[in-house]
Amino acid sequence: MGRVYNFAAGPATLPLPVLEKAKDEFLEYGSTGMSVMEMSHRSKMYLEIYQQTEAVFRSVMDIPEDYAVLFLAGGATGQFAAIPMNLLPEDGIADYVDSGNFAHGAAVEAKKYGNVHIIASSREDNYVHIPVIDASMLDADAAYLHITTNNTIFGTRYLSLPETGNVPLVADASSNILSESYDIRKFGVMYAGAQKNIGPAGMAVVIVRKDLLGHARNSTPKIFDWAKQAEADSMVNTPSTYTIYLAGLCLEWVKAQGGIAALEKVNIEKAALLYDFIDNSKLFKGTADKAYRSRMNVTFVTGDPETDNDFVKAAANAGLLNLKGHRLVGGIRASIYNAMPIEGVKKLVDFMKEYEAKHV
Amino acid sequence: MGRVYNFAAGPATLPLPVLEKAKDEFLEYGSTGMSVMEMSHRSKMYLEIYQQTEAVFRSVMDIPEDYAVLFLAGGATGQFAAIPMNLLPEDGIADYVDSGNFAHGAAVEAKKYGNVHIIASSREDNYVHIPVIDASMLDADAAYLHITTNNTIFGTRYLSLPETGNVPLVADASSNILSESYDIRKFGVMYAGAQKNIGPAGMAVVIVRKDLLGHARNSTPKIFDWAKQAEADSMVNTPSTYTIYLAGLCLEWVKAQGGIAALEKVNIEKAALLYDFIDNSKLFKGTADKAYRSRMNVTFVTGDPETDNDFVKAAANAGLLNLKGHRLVGGIRASIYNAMPIEGVKKLVDFMKEYEAKHV
Repeated sequence: MGRVYNFAAGPATLPLPVLEKAKDEFLEYGSTGMSVMEMSHRSKMYLEIYQQTEAVFRSVMDIPEDYAVLFLAGGATGQFAAIPMNLLPEDGIADYVDSGNFAHGAAVEAKKYGNVHIIASSREDNYVHIPVIDASMLDADAAYLHITTNNTIFGTRYLSLPETGNVPLVADASSNILSESYDIRKFGVMYAGAQKNIGPAGMAVVIVRKDLLGHARNSTPKIFDWAKQAEADSMVNTPSTYTIYLAGLCLEWVKAQGGIAALEKVNIEKAALLYDFIDNSKLFKGTADKAYRSRMNVTFVTGDPETDNDFVKAAANAGLLNLKGHRLVGGIRASIYNAMPIEGVKKLVDFMKEYEAKHV
Repeated sequence: MGRVYNFAAGPATLPLPVLEKAKDEFLEYGSTGMSVMEMSHRSKMYLEIYQQTEAVFRSVMDIPEDYAVLFLAGGATGQFAAIPMNLLPEDGIADYVDSGNFAHGAAVEAKKYGNVHIIASSREDNYVHIPVIDASMLDADAAYLHITTNNTIFGTRYLSLPETGNVPLVADASSNILSESYDIRKFGVMYAGAQKNIGPAGMAVVIVRKDLLGHARNSTPKIFDWAKQAEADSMVNTPSTYTIYLAGLCLEWVKAQGGIAALEKVNIEKAALLYDFIDNSKLFKGTADKAYRSRMNVTFVTGDPETDNDFVKAAANAGLLNLKGHRLVGGIRASIYNAMPIEGVKKLVDFMKEYEAKHV
């Protein structure tokens, strides 16, 4: 079939020009006589790709020199363990906000390594909103405060960052990094699994303020030791060389679109198209509180699980794929990351209109 | 330029038919309307790729049902930590054989997690041979014995496996898996980084006898918990979906070549071509003890580091790339994994002949 619109939550659709470029140079990169995936990670030709990827990442996100940028194996879930290993003293305390399934998972993983204090949670409310946080809730001596800027499963997003004073803010931005502007200087650490807005699956990017490096526990696996990885350009172990190359192509694409600010405008427009339709629909109903709606993951239901499933199947037959909600919550979810063109969202809205006309 | 012969130690050359097939289906896999790297890891279309990859891996390596097969992030270096986390009780003891740099690194990493006993080492002899091991050297209550079946940097290889009785044998086979026949039943665990004989970088395969599962420490990062990963088909976290797909293509290629036994014959022939020439050369001299020579990594020197460097450069100009020895040892190294065609080895020998004629 022709190219579908793929609304998967991650691994997710990638920009077509990126895929086309990668295909063009798949067998031979430049005039090197080999594929990128065959290059020694220590070779001059590969190191140029690596350095270019880091440079464009720093450029599009405006990451200053006092932050290290790491490309590590194991995705965000690997970092759920790496964060306390690198930041939490054995007798320290880490504050977590529980705003969704992965936020919860990050805290559960961190509990293996020390004292974790969940200072706010929307779990009792099925995570339909972001819990209110104010500075007084933080432990004064917390090693860090961990938040999840966008909740992929529940379709919610922080409107503003919590004020944390001297406590470093650590953010899992897996599902909205590169989709909206953040001032990285407000974060101690921002990290993200690659498989939504950065590239293919199998990697995490970690942006860490350099003064936070060097405190890893002795029991930290060396592939997770941020200071060692920062010193070694993420090559303590052989990195995911091809994934890094593809991330570089995606980042170049972000730049070519006008950077994050330009994409953010389109993302706001894409999300508004869907939410506006949902809010006026007689069949579909958004599941997240309006104030906290995600621009990346739009979650909704018909109110009847069978109709939800029928809709997902009918949409797939029309070339609109992977609209099924996460298995934990059911319903319908349209993930509309940077690489989802506005035409895809329009087509989805048109299809929802048609479907509604037949079913109401 | 045309396709070079790439003698890199890893990431390494891949079979050209594999690259060509992957290129053909890069933009669209089958009639799915998307690239493999855009597929949700939970989608039916991707699970078929995953299951097929595991099935062909089990088939070519004759892995019985009482072994789990895992595809994990972080390469062999990640597993250096995962092994004691999964197998070594806090008060237990793990035996290690120190036969090279990565064997040593595996032991150093394991020491973070408990008592490590290096029962034999060839470090004092610059790792030019595999240390002699007999059953009496093992700690009777050792949780496991760890060996490195092929030493990538020094170009050595075990001729036979140590007898370990009831102590599980754990083997890092990163640089010779799939290149020679092993009876997996003799191992408690065999693991390997993907980037030599399995596929691109960024993944480890772990083959583990199921009775060894379920003893991971509480402090094990969940992405490294073998039992949880075995239950979840390596999807506790989002796996390296595209790397697994490419590993599947490489494994299908192994099968199409006649399987491991057929490749082993060619590998013996390839190594003999090089070693025979070296042994009769007036310029080049092998660095590993003859009895323990690797079939995958052929290490040699001219006796003069400047001439070594000049040779490596001249060879690169002739389309024979990445012959530089590892930075720890210098000299020259030709890595001739499964994907290096015998023509590449012949071309290298011819070039060495010419070079010798000019320089002796």
